[in-house]
Amino acid sequence: MPTILGQNQYGKAENRVVRITRDGDTHHIKDLNVSVALSGDMDDVHYSGSNANVLPTDTTKNTVYAFAKEHGIESAEQFGIHLARHFVTSQEPIKTARIRIEEYAWERIATSDGNSQFIGADEVKHSFVRKGQETRTTQITFDGEKWQVISGLKDLVVMNSTSSEFWGYVKDKYTTLKEAYDRILATEVSAKWRYNWTSDDARMPNWEKSYEQTRKHMLQAFAETYSLSLQQTLYQMGSRIINSRSEVDEIRFSLPNKHHFLVDLEPFGLKNDNEVYFAADRPYGLIEATVLRDGTEPQIPVDMTNL
Amino acid sequence: MPTILGQNQYGKAENRVVRITRDGDTHHIKDLNVSVALSGDMDDVHYSGSNANVLPTDTTKNTVYAFAKEHGIESAEQFGIHLARHFVTSQEPIKTARIRIEEYAWERIATSDGNSQFIGADEVKHSFVRKGQETRTTQITFDGEKWQVISGLKDLVVMNSTSSEFWGYVKDKYTTLKEAYDRILATEVSAKWRYNWTSDDARMPNWEKSYEQTRKHMLQAFAETYSLSLQQTLYQMGSRIINSRSEVDEIRFSLPNKHHFLVDLEPFGLKNDNEVYFAADRPYGLIEATVLRDGTEPQIPVDMTNL
Amino acid sequence: MPTILGQNQYGKAENRVVRITRDGDTHHIKDLNVSVALSGDMDDVHYSGSNANVLPTDTTKNTVYAFAKEHGIESAEQFGIHLARHFVTSQEPIKTARIRIEEYAWERIATSDGNSQFIGADEVKHSFVRKGQETRTTQITFDGEKWQVISGLKDLVVMNSTSSEFWGYVKDKYTTLKEAYDRILATEVSAKWRYNWTSDDARMPNWEKSYEQTRKHMLQAFAETYSLSLQQTLYQMGSRIINSRSEVDEIRFSLPNKHHFLVDLEPFGLKNDNEVYFAADRPYGLIEATVLRDGTEPQIPVDMTNL
Amino acid sequence: MPTILGQNQYGKAENRVVRITRDGDTHHIKDLNVSVALSGDMDDVHYSGSNANVLPTDTTKNTVYAFAKEHGIESAEQFGIHLARHFVTSQEPIKTARIRIEEYAWERIATSDGNSQFIGADEVKHSFVRKGQETRTTQITFDGEKWQVISGLKDLVVMNSTSSEFWGYVKDKYTTLKEAYDRILATEVSAKWRYNWTSDDARMPNWEKSYEQTRKHMLQAFAETYSLSLQQTLYQMGSRIINSRSEVDEIRFSLPNKHHFLVDLEPFGLKNDNEVYFAADRPYGLIEATVLRDGTEPQIPVDMTNL
Repeated sequence: MPTILGQNQYGKAENRVVRITRDGDTHHIKDLNVSVALSGDMDDVHYSGSNANVLPTDTTKNTVYAFAKEHGIESAEQFGIHLARHFVTSQEPIKTARIRIEEYAWERIATSDGNSQFIGADEVKHSFVRKGQETRTTQITFDGEKWQVISGLKDLVVMNSTSSEFWGYVKDKYTTLKEAYDRILATEVSAKWRYNWTSDDARMPNWEKSYEQTRKHMLQAFAETYSLSLQQTLYQMGSRIINSRSEVDEIRFSLPNKHHFLVDLEPFGLKNDNEVYFAADRPYGLIEATVLRDGTEPQIPVDMTNL
Repeated sequence: MPTILGQNQYGKAENRVVRITRDGDTHHIKDLNVSVALSGDMDDVHYSGSNANVLPTDTTKNTVYAFAKEHGIESAEQFGIHLARHFVTSQEPIKTARIRIEEYAWERIATSDGNSQFIGADEVKHSFVRKGQETRTTQITFDGEKWQVISGLKDLVVMNSTSSEFWGYVKDKYTTLKEAYDRILATEVSAKWRYNWTSDDARMPNWEKSYEQTRKHMLQAFAETYSLSLQQTLYQMGSRIINSRSEVDEIRFSLPNKHHFLVDLEPFGLKNDNEVYFAADRPYGLIEATVLRDGTEPQIPVDMTNL
Repeated sequence: MPTILGQNQYGKAENRVVRITRDGDTHHIKDLNVSVALSGDMDDVHYSGSNANVLPTDTTKNTVYAFAKEHGIESAEQFGIHLARHFVTSQEPIKTARIRIEEYAWERIATSDGNSQFIGADEVKHSFVRKGQETRTTQITFDGEKWQVISGLKDLVVMNSTSSEFWGYVKDKYTTLKEAYDRILATEVSAKWRYNWTSDDARMPNWEKSYEQTRKHMLQAFAETYSLSLQQTLYQMGSRIINSRSEVDEIRFSLPNKHHFLVDLEPFGLKNDNEVYFAADRPYGLIEATVLRDGTEPQIPVDMTNL
Repeated sequence: MPTILGQNQYGKAENRVVRITRDGDTHHIKDLNVSVALSGDMDDVHYSGSNANVLPTDTTKNTVYAFAKEHGIESAEQFGIHLARHFVTSQEPIKTARIRIEEYAWERIATSDGNSQFIGADEVKHSFVRKGQETRTTQITFDGEKWQVISGLKDLVVMNSTSSEFWGYVKDKYTTLKEAYDRILATEVSAKWRYNWTSDDARMPNWEKSYEQTRKHMLQAFAETYSLSLQQTLYQMGSRIINSRSEVDEIRFSLPNKHHFLVDLEPFGLKNDNEVYFAADRPYGLIEATVLRDGTEPQIPVDMTNL
């Protein structure tokens, strides 16, 4: 046979599950988008079309909804662990399960009497507004023995309106860029970080707290770094997380440089003293790198974008 | 000539302008997307291609950036008023100017010492994260005499996890829906409200405060209405705004009913006690209506969507 | 009561229906996205939440699918006419129905033996590839007596790589644009045209042929017009359609000027003789106008975009 | 130092370049979206912010436009090869360059006299309409010695309206799916194939012809396979390409199963004889696999999607 089958996987993608938990009158929401990918002894279905080893993708969808009831959704990570374990341990042909989850955050709506709009004692206990900031992500992979948990976030747009420079770079015959000593630095953070928890024998991280803290350190490092290049800022963001969170060994960033060009107002007799910017769409610089705990091996794939 | 020209307008759309204001070390951002549409004596350019009356769209773009410097951006509405007045009063052939603006909100990033993550005294004074919730909008129209200001918002996703019913409706031969006595009610609010300020002789509303209060009443009415239909909730949201904000005479909503279907878990021997939902994409109910102050005439166009 | 209800409408939006027709082994596809909006005696549901006059949006969805079987889908227009008539004539409280439809075109896949890839005698008779060019649209409105049919298209991207100039325009203090005597003219056509068929007593147009011919005239007029402004091209496109298609009385265009900027290669010692362009995203000129048969009244709403 | 830098790359992404070639009155278009990613001795810029080894992303952008003039754009692949070679050979710190390109196809607009609308002798020689079907892609990687070329396509939507079954699968306690003996099979093809050309010493493939033929075999295999599972169809598509195109050694597919559910019309007294379908959005089955020439090693990364 001149052609052979290589790596393959299948499952139901983008199962949108919303789980409401009722604590008396106070409701809680978990709002997830769950994608299942299963691998194993799947040669036959590719070569001959025999589905004898194929658990239908429809069944993997049903399992997501059933598990939201049976196990609840404590965190996206914990939910993914339940699912991955189930597929690998209950189906002989399935050797590896990968669960990817996006999570959308909600906050409470305050009642008429509250002073603060969203946070306070007088919230309507079942009314929510979607936060709409970053999307939280996780990816759980299980091969029957070892776990790999890579969590992250995307769509988090940040800006420093000063404390950024760019100069001293290579000039070749195609270089026209002028050096900048006070520029806007803005990016839309995509990040994935790998936990060093890999075994049921070890104690699991507190996934909710770890996410909150990782995100906080990321934002603070962005804000507090006086930047000579976006690469430097990226490294500061990564190393602060590795240094602050012992449960994280590796983090990869994809940071588009969202260019804000100072508009030339001189033709109109005006001086633009770092006040008026054109926010450009395309093209954009794209800076990507991994930051690792020394002594560990990188596992997060290099590609976080198709461009 | 068997064909004639009807209504026409032109201008530069989607000028992305970011304005930084520096109050010592403390910076402020306004982040806008500004679209200009001009109308007037434009027959010739359509019939013969003569551009003698045409101020280039490129010039309207330049004007947006120049005005961000000359006038600053106190609010989206005030900025649009400056622009509309300029085009109508400075260009004889231009009889009407319509400025549409989208505004994206940012919040500050807290420093390492702050307890609260985003609000507190210890913010880095030039570091921001995009809020990412609703997009604020405004549309300013000026014909040389009268102003029309229609502000609004879109992309604001809200949910009540209970206190919603739907029953007692018409049943025809195509009706299969079961009545619901406790359902999720979720929507993505698009709203446009018209101010009754129309003349330079009258005192202008406080645009920033008006937006904040209108949004607050909208959210509270959504949260506090025990709903028998999304139409009822819509009307409550609108009437609370009209009753609370004397500067607003009319509001139109486009509210997709973001269906959350209770998943049938009985095949798996599980009871779904309003806990696990499938969040559907399409199709969706779409509820649209105008709420008006009694005695006023509607002016907001009916169409807020193309579907 | 200080607030009152204004115009309102409701229904199920974006019902995705695919209809397969089998002519022996040869299959045919109609692939539609159907949105229903109903208006009438709907005060109660807004004021009190009573659904006594409300046919559920779920029922309007069911009707779309049932009618795809009962009536087939001869054309998007004819299908919308069946639906609109049904809602208005079968439900007493419903006074007006508006059906909006998007249609996606498919073409056949040729077999291995065919020389031509997609057109030929040897097609697999049930295999299709989505054409992916423009989206065809229609909007049917019926009030129990008169019909209004507004069809159109969107997402049709066209370009002339020469035969376009732009000069002789107004210069004010904010004008920096240089005149152009040979530029690229590119746009993404959105168009809506109104048929003069309004009554069941008159003979209906051949909707499929009319669409094909209208689209053809639009493209040819774009290609064959030596353009001094995009407005002039727009008018030529519109008037050629009105002059060629007696069933169409009015057409409105929304034409973004998709700027292709000649790149300055002089810093690299290169001459750019209208060869290398930067295709910009935002901002863009936006040219909108209606072209009418003389003696008719415009009915197509001015707004075809939210920007 | 407890943290270290891992894999990193940078460059300008999404440079939109349109190249017009004039052959007398007959113009030709190449319309590309070019993304540059460079790697090499970049530790300093991450650790200290020193840009001494950094060719600015702005320069990489300029190079794209200059090369469109200097070398022309014979094919996306050839253009990417020129760029990758330049960055690696002209900049000592740069060890690897990866160029990713999307290409958008255009077809000519016929004149008024042509019978066929788009193909014929009487085209306007400078007027084009964007084809709008699949997006062609390529990725060129060069490390100074060896080349890797991975081309592909995405957004190509195909459907068989019959000749597809799905039965004989595993049933567990969460399985509710009914077996299907005549279903619609539809997918949106994303594919990447790797060429075995790796060295300047070997003769380069004809990139344009290879793309056209690979696409043709892919479509024909989809059309001509009687399918018992989407996996089987995928494998047939891949193996036909490997068997037909000696220049291709490996292909990876990501095929969402675009579910078309037969609508239950029995409640309305209607029989749905494979005629009326609901085209669902989410969730969807996602089938991904690599097909290889026997004896070769896979190189295409497993991840073609983030879900």
